[in-house]
Amino acid sequence: MHIWASGAADQIIGDGLYTTLRHISLLMELMYSDPARYSCMFQSYVQLTMMDNHTAPVEKPIKMMERSIHSGRYCFIENLHRGGLMADAEYAVLDQWFQWITANVNVQPDLIGMAGRTRMYLRTSPEVALERIRRRSRDEERAIPESYVRALHELHEDWLVRRAQFPVPCQVLVLDADQDLSLLKEEFNVRKQEILCRSEVKSPVKSDRPAAASAAAV
Amino acid sequence: MHIWASGAADQIIGDGLYTTLRHISLLMELMYSDPARYSCMFQSYVQLTMMDNHTAPVEKPIKMMERSIHSGRYCFIENLHRGGLMADAEYAVLDQWFQWITANVNVQPDLIGMAGRTRMYLRTSPEVALERIRRRSRDEERAIPESYVRALHELHEDWLVRRAQFPVPCQVLVLDADQDLSLLKEEFNVRKQEILCRSEVKSPVKSDRPAAASAAAV
Repeated sequence: MHIWASGAADQIIGDGLYTTLRHISLLMELMYSDPARYSCMFQSYVQLTMMDNHTAPVEKPIKMMERSIHSGRYCFIENLHRGGLMADAEYAVLDQWFQWITANVNVQPDLIGMAGRTRMYLRTSPEVALERIRRRSRDEERAIPESYVRALHELHEDWLVRRAQFPVPCQVLVLDADQDLSLLKEEFNVRKQEILCRSEVKSPVKSDRPAAASAAAV
Repeated sequence: MHIWASGAADQIIGDGLYTTLRHISLLMELMYSDPARYSCMFQSYVQLTMMDNHTAPVEKPIKMMERSIHSGRYCFIENLHRGGLMADAEYAVLDQWFQWITANVNVQPDLIGMAGRTRMYLRTSPEVALERIRRRSRDEERAIPESYVRALHELHEDWLVRRAQFPVPCQVLVLDADQDLSLLKEEFNVRKQEILCRSEVKSPVKSDRPAAASAAAV
């Protein structure tokens, strides 16, 4: 079973993903230094690594991922194209890849023998996301413009809440990620049966670990 | 069964492929107008359409393709990178995709229940390839530099004849494509059992049709 954690903006940028992808720091450096030039290459690599993540076998009954091939297409690629940082032809090529992958590779979240497919949306307002970026003060995040965070937030809202443009491939569970991490963990523990699609959960999330990573370790 | 016709330079450039790929003329225009900018996008799309070609079901017992995902990687992508028209990071991303595709998608030529896997190499010298390009006088081919044709020829030779750098995934059948088309068709008819891996062949190639297309129609 795959459960996707589709994070809001502060989850999305410079957090988590780049530590798990091979070569990703070099690619991100190129991407941030000249996005109009390297956005297609970067998003192509994101598609590849997301597909790897979706299809990687796991021993546990639940796989929790940060982001997905779908948020890549509907939010990140969409944002780059709308913002004039990706040529029409590049956008078309990445969309064709997305169509091929979703038609031919098992990237659907599924819950065999159970009732649901879940996408978790850690909904965070742009203001809180920006404040967290400011507070954690990472070198590679200093150049992120506020407009970028706001645009990505609106695309996530369009997709998962307003359902204005793109299909939502499964059930969406919205968690208020504006709240402090301690409160978010409490909410996670209260709703864990729902979040984990009623899978067996052996222990509550520990307070000294981030929610997504702990959930993934369940 | 897939039999690949891995063409020499005059088969490779501006011939056949672009008529079969969706949107390819726009992409080629971008690619030729600014190869250093668009080579990665273009080759990514070539990988996608090649993968489609490799996996497309056919009713006939033989599928003959012009080029393959392998020649894309070992000749075209390699040439762009060596020529300074593709950034190191783009080359690495396309190579990662190639590794994923060849490990996860059935793009191997195979001949179920028979003895061989065949790649056909229509070996053409750069001089003859250039003369044919000149004679057919296509608008989109006027800007092709001689050095490009020569470099691609050397990469095909390195790969399929000298076996100097990259693995050859199957048996290679070399046909002398410097000879006139009528002689090539004669050779095709004489060697058709070998070319078609001893499949049943109902009729010889007709003289008014190009060899590859006729073979594909068998």
